[in-house]
Amino acid sequence: MTDFWNGIPDIPARLDAVRARMKLVVGSDRFPLAHAVERLIDANGKMLRPAFLIMAGRFGKRPKDLTDLAAAIELLHIATLIHDDVIDEADTRRGVPTLHALYGHKDAVLSGDWLFSRCFRLASESSSPQNARLLAALIGALCSEEIHQDLERFAWPVSQRNYLRKIAGKTAALFSLALRAGAVETKTSISNIATLTRAGYATGMAFQIMDDVLDYESSSGAMRKPVAKDVREGLCTLPLILAMRAAPTQIKPLLGSSKPGDDAIESIVALVRDSGALDGSRAIASHYTDRAMLEISRLPKGSARDDLHATVERLLLRKF
Amino acid sequence: MTDFWNGIPDIPARLDAVRARMKLVVGSDRFPLAHAVERLIDANGKMLRPAFLIMAGRFGKRPKDLTDLAAAIELLHIATLIHDDVIDEADTRRGVPTLHALYGHKDAVLSGDWLFSRCFRLASESSSPQNARLLAALIGALCSEEIHQDLERFAWPVSQRNYLRKIAGKTAALFSLALRAGAVETKTSISNIATLTRAGYATGMAFQIMDDVLDYESSSGAMRKPVAKDVREGLCTLPLILAMRAAPTQIKPLLGSSKPGDDAIESIVALVRDSGALDGSRAIASHYTDRAMLEISRLPKGSARDDLHATVERLLLRKF
Repeated sequence: MTDFWNGIPDIPARLDAVRARMKLVVGSDRFPLAHAVERLIDANGKMLRPAFLIMAGRFGKRPKDLTDLAAAIELLHIATLIHDDVIDEADTRRGVPTLHALYGHKDAVLSGDWLFSRCFRLASESSSPQNARLLAALIGALCSEEIHQDLERFAWPVSQRNYLRKIAGKTAALFSLALRAGAVETKTSISNIATLTRAGYATGMAFQIMDDVLDYESSSGAMRKPVAKDVREGLCTLPLILAMRAAPTQIKPLLGSSKPGDDAIESIVALVRDSGALDGSRAIASHYTDRAMLEISRLPKGSARDDLHATVERLLLRKF
Repeated sequence: MTDFWNGIPDIPARLDAVRARMKLVVGSDRFPLAHAVERLIDANGKMLRPAFLIMAGRFGKRPKDLTDLAAAIELLHIATLIHDDVIDEADTRRGVPTLHALYGHKDAVLSGDWLFSRCFRLASESSSPQNARLLAALIGALCSEEIHQDLERFAWPVSQRNYLRKIAGKTAALFSLALRAGAVETKTSISNIATLTRAGYATGMAFQIMDDVLDYESSSGAMRKPVAKDVREGLCTLPLILAMRAAPTQIKPLLGSSKPGDDAIESIVALVRDSGALDGSRAIASHYTDRAMLEISRLPKGSARDDLHATVERLLLRKF
């Protein structure tokens, strides 16, 4: 995924340093499954969160090496992925065998726990107490949100307001934490911290909505079956909410009260696609994208702002 | 288990306050499974770790309310129990249904993660950065040690030295952290901090060895463990190590290279009991008990010392 960062100066090199630091941490404390976790680190995606942290740090008055805090944030992400793989009993992730597949669920659960504690330690050693607390609070909020989501699976329908609250507590909270933490660490002015926090929030909202739209747009396999992972798992995202508003009498009977079958899924996806709900969702995403761009335009002129602007544009307009 | 604390002044009331604080934390952040975790808190055991923390705090120059830090330490313990129940697919714990049984492994894994993050946040809010880091480091060490132990299951035999190193990193580390943290928070003198840390270490070593002896001695017993749980799970503890030294030609063939069957287990337990290995293990435990008592006798005279002495005596001599 390094292609994503082409033309954004300095970030690829900084992310290499973060990746190296992550591996150094993973290799510490006689941690027995270091090799397996290192492979996950190498196969990891764009590393958006540490990149946002580092980019936000450029607006500060006091430059500071944010490699440790960036590594802590991304290792927390890896820890949640390891636990996700236990939960989903997944065998591979990005083509790499999961810890769950290699060592069973006991060692995978414990490895996630080890990484959690390692990250909190790293954060408490390398950042302000304020950011260490923020990080712990955020992870807590994410877990709590995930449990709520799990308990509400297949309990259609969900309101648009409820949906927006959920993604605000998830993706938007993570993106805004990354930008906020970088800014706080480098003593950025209060008003620029607030602007970056809002920019991160709007970017996260737009990103998550676009991701939920993609889930209804994409198909897989020779038969081009719709992916529709969310509705299969009982999650009610924005496209389905808008479609239910447009065609309630057709969709509601298909959802039923529990897990819809394959045929029902295909019909639901067709109805969502035909209802205009994808365009409607994209319009709401655009609203957040515009807000993100507006916030970024309020930051001081210069290469820090240009790079952040280019990154958010790339991410939200999928120009990569 | 409140019986345990009978006659130790003040501690039962303090532990009630810790329990109340734990429930307050669990009821925060819209955490959806608060009720289930509260039931685990009520069914929790002696709460030795928070009690040690509070007792150590009495040696300090600057009295401080340690309820928050004690709650953080015990919640971390609850978090690991929740993950243990996922790993073991356990349905009940101390007669209370596990989160795994009530909500499935997804929500149980996430609840443990939520509790972890909540504890780190509580620790970073309520204690010195030094203790917050210590706590994170210790949890990391415990997970790493558990993974090592899991990877080495059924790889008999283990040396006595290796065994002692393992329990040092587990129970002894936890006990000594609890005493150390309480002393550090209340500005105890450096030499008393060191004495308390050593007392905790020796107490933890003796406690764990006694626990491992009990596993071979009892059919249901004070610890409510099934007979020979350790050897069934492939763990080589001190009694088995000493017995193998006494009767190698009889025991080694029974262990084989993988999981011994039920008949083999019964023969192994009989051989361990007949070999004198339990008395041998108890003698080693006594050595640590003596060391713990010696360290405690070096602390300043007074009720703080008397209460700690009474607690450790009760715990190690099982006079309750």
